[in-house]
Parts: sequence; structure tokens; C-alpha cells
Amino acid sequence: MNVVVVGIGLIGGSFAKDVKALYPNVHIIGIDNSDNHLEEALELQIIDEKGSYDALSQADVIFVSIPVNAMVRELPKILDAVGEETVVIDAGSTKELICQSVAEHPKRRNFMACHPIAGTEFSGPSAAMEGLYEGKTNIICEVEKTAFKLQERALAIFQDMKMRIRYMNPVAHDKHIAYVSHLSHISSFMLGKTVIEKEKNERDIFDMAGSGFESTVRLAKSSPEMWTPIFEQNRENVVETLEEYIQNLETFKQLLKDKDFDNVYREMSDTNRIKQILKGIPLTKK
Amino acid sequence: MNVVVVGIGLIGGSFAKDVKALYPNVHIIGIDNSDNHLEEALELQIIDEKGSYDALSQADVIFVSIPVNAMVRELPKILDAVGEETVVIDAGSTKELICQSVAEHPKRRNFMACHPIAGTEFSGPSAAMEGLYEGKTNIICEVEKTAFKLQERALAIFQDMKMRIRYMNPVAHDKHIAYVSHLSHISSFMLGKTVIEKEKNERDIFDMAGSGFESTVRLAKSSPEMWTPIFEQNRENVVETLEEYIQNLETFKQLLKDKDFDNVYREMSDTNRIKQILKGIPLTKK
Repeated sequence: MNVVVVGIGLIGGSFAKDVKALYPNVHIIGIDNSDNHLEEALELQIIDEKGSYDALSQADVIFVSIPVNAMVRELPKILDAVGEETVVIDAGSTKELICQSVAEHPKRRNFMACHPIAGTEFSGPSAAMEGLYEGKTNIICEVEKTAFKLQERALAIFQDMKMRIRYMNPVAHDKHIAYVSHLSHISSFMLGKTVIEKEKNERDIFDMAGSGFESTVRLAKSSPEMWTPIFEQNRENVVETLEEYIQNLETFKQLLKDKDFDNVYREMSDTNRIKQILKGIPLTKK
Repeated sequence: MNVVVVGIGLIGGSFAKDVKALYPNVHIIGIDNSDNHLEEALELQIIDEKGSYDALSQADVIFVSIPVNAMVRELPKILDAVGEETVVIDAGSTKELICQSVAEHPKRRNFMACHPIAGTEFSGPSAAMEGLYEGKTNIICEVEKTAFKLQERALAIFQDMKMRIRYMNPVAHDKHIAYVSHLSHISSFMLGKTVIEKEKNERDIFDMAGSGFESTVRLAKSSPEMWTPIFEQNRENVVETLEEYIQNLETFKQLLKDKDFDNVYREMSDTNRIKQILKGIPLTKK
């Protein structure tokens, strides 16, 4: 099997590592606009060789994991270059604009729009890890627009990687993901900003950070190169989530100002059921 | 050595476990207003026996880890009952009101005001873990008000537990901790609330939660019994941090609305240095 990974960072590199582990005879070509990343990926044996779009016509599977602004620009070019039997999978965190970018492409049926919901706050080939996708959800959009046997090939890989598959339309994906992922990143970045601004003595932040701060601020280590275009493409949904989040914070602040601690307690205990939700246990409604 | 732990949950139970591991001959008495917790702590061999305040006069060390509203009520009673040679250590997440509550107590010199900055989102004796405090910061307030040889005894324990000691005054503690800990908890609770409100289909939250949501929402599993009195005692500082956090979120939202993505990028890249801060590495200012 010939696999090409376009964008050999955390997401693409982890895909390459899994594919290599699952199918020992696979040949993996890496394409990246950073030659440093390519050299690193070669050294780490994540890819077998460096390549260019010339390699696309011979590929069975192409996995595209580049920032979503580059994605909408490159995907049509990638489809231009692929063979009849190639499946192109993207891993973009937004889906509406990406699907639009290839909606009228003559090779639309070679494309499968995916969002494997996995990642860490780190980036680059050295952040790639085997097993990143195991047990994670892969959201596939407009699956009916992908050629049936190419769907099958891609799904077999995801199944071998032990991913859970969910199907959604691109508009619904972007709306939900704004709440569950994009808002988390902004809340974390702004938390980090608020604390850094206040605590001029950075030693104090470090010394006092034991009590939960690291986990809430973890996402503030994320790459602005990746996240700026995500927020740009999902701007309207993200603004809506921010408005609701700010409103909830205002309400909580007002309860504190009013010394209404019964409702402060209730706000927290109502939200405690996130425990059950994250365990995936169906809830009995109160 | 006779040790009494008042409040045998995550914090007190973890202290008891470390003390038992470090000093095999220690005898640990547990006091808790929940008999279930006491029975559980006995069964888990976290404590050697259940007791009451009658046991306090014979204790060498008393560790008090109860919600901060109970703390300001119970600490004076505990000091009333201790012997001349007993050191009483508290583990409250606020310090100003707690220090005030015993400021005029005739046995003030038997008290050492501490905030070991450690914990998880879980609670109760079953959440207790050996080594919880290793490498964590313990903030000690008004150390000069504790009798010198009792300071020594407490510090020797913290040193054996491999804690890092920092000294602060109670007012500064409460101000800093509002940013680094209390704000994190509110941001997490309100994030959980915003997502739960929107995502009526809880399965969707679970399925889409891979991308960072768990870590930012982790603290929303925390105990309202513990946190309501913390917010009550540190109300003014917490309201201030919330105002600044909301302002930063508003600014970010406005940048998105204005499509000012250069500054969206800059907001995130400026905050990225939280990476270095959390590693404790001194920074070269840009």
C-alpha cells in the first residue's frame, strides 16, 4: 500500500506511525513545506521518503493534516493530482468550508472529509505517537459523496486503528465542535493570559500552579498557526459559544457579588454531572 | 508519634498515608463528621482508629483538612483542646479568614497556617493517595506566629514528604491563589455548564470530547461542598479575577467579530509562554 501524508506533524505523524505498525509492507511518503519536519520525520522513521505532489498519482491513501487555511487551498490541487483509485482523507478541525472547497471538484468522490478528534497541545513530528487514535472518535462528513470502495478502504484503516466512527453533516459538525473543542481552547488561552498579566512574578505562577491550573491552562500551549485559521473558518459559531460562556461567567460573578451562595453551590452541583457524561454513562434525568 | 487527622478525605487521607509510610511507628487517629468516611478510612488502613476531640490533648501533630467554613468554626475549638506540645496544621485553600479566626487565641503559637497546593478533582478517603504532596508547594502563612520548635516539627514532616515550602502573608496568598487556582475552577465549571446547556444530546459531548475538553473541564467535577465556602471567603479577590477574565474573553470575542486575525494570533502566541512558566524555566523577555 502506498500512503502519502501531507503535513507530517503531530496528527499526520501519528497516522503514519499507526499505519506503519498495522501494515508492515506500507510505503509512506511525507510531504511538508518544512524541510526540517521532513528530515525529522525521516530520522524518526515516521516516513520512508520525502516526496512532492508528483507522488500523489500513485498513492492508495493520502492523509492531509495541515492547518485549515492551507487545507482549503491545497485540497483542490491534491485532488487534481490523484489517480482514479486514490482516497484523500483530511483531518481538518473544521468541515463546512473544507467540504465547500471541493464540492464541485470533478474528483470529489476521491475525497473523504474527516475530523479525527485526537491531539495533544504539542506539535511537529516529534510529538507524533503510536496509538493516538485508539478509542477516539472520527467524525466523517458527507460520507455519501465518497466513492463506495474508497469509503471502504478508509474505514478499514480507521477500524484497524480502533477509532469510533460518527457521521455528521459539516454544518452540524462545526456547530458542535465549537462548543466541545474550540471554546475550550479559548477559555484556556484567556485563563493563561489573565494569570500571566496579573502575576508579574512568574515564579509565583509556577509555585502555586498545583491546584488545577495546569490542566485548565494546558490548551494555551497550543499552536497559534493551527488555531487562528480554525477560529477564522468557524468564526460565527465560536463567537456564539463565547457569548454564552461569558454570560454564564457573568451570572456566576453576580451570584458571588450578591452573596447568593446557595445558587453558587447549585451552579456547581448541576455541572458536576459532567463526571457521568465524560464516562459515557447514560444519565437518569433528575 | 501521635497524629490526629481531622477530616479524612482526599487531602487528610493522603497526608495520613504519607505519614504512615514515612514513620512506621506513628499512630493515626481519624476524626470526621461522616462515620462512613471513618469506616472507609479504617478499612483502607489510612487511620488506626476513630476518635473525637478528646484525643487532641495527646497528639503531637493535628492535621485539619475540612471545608474552610468548618475550618474557621472548628479551629478555635481544636486549639482549646490541644496540649502544650501539639502542633495544629491546617490545609485550607484560603488563609486570611482562617488566620483571623485564631489570631487572638491563647494557643495561637500551637497553630501553623498552611496551604499544601495539591489535590485532584476527586474527594473522600478512597481518593487519598500516597505521594500526592511530593514536589508540590506548601504555602505557609504567618510562620513567625508559630512556636519555633513546633515549626521545626511540622517542617520536618513536609521536608520528608518532599514538599517545596514558600512563605507568604495571608492577604497575598488569597489574592494570588484566586488567580492561579480559584479562577481555574470557575472557568472550568462554567465551561462545563455552557457545553451541557447547549448539547442536549449528551452522547455528542462524550463522542466529541477528545479534543481538549476533558482537561479544561476536569475541575468541574470538584466538590461544591468544598468550593462554595472557598469562594465565599475569597469573594472579593475571586470577583476581581472574574472581571479580568471576562474582559479578556470579551476582547478576544471582539477580535473575532472584527476579523482581526493578526491579533487573534498574537493573543495566542503571547500566551504560549505559559509553556516555559509551567516548566519553571526562567524566561528571557522578548
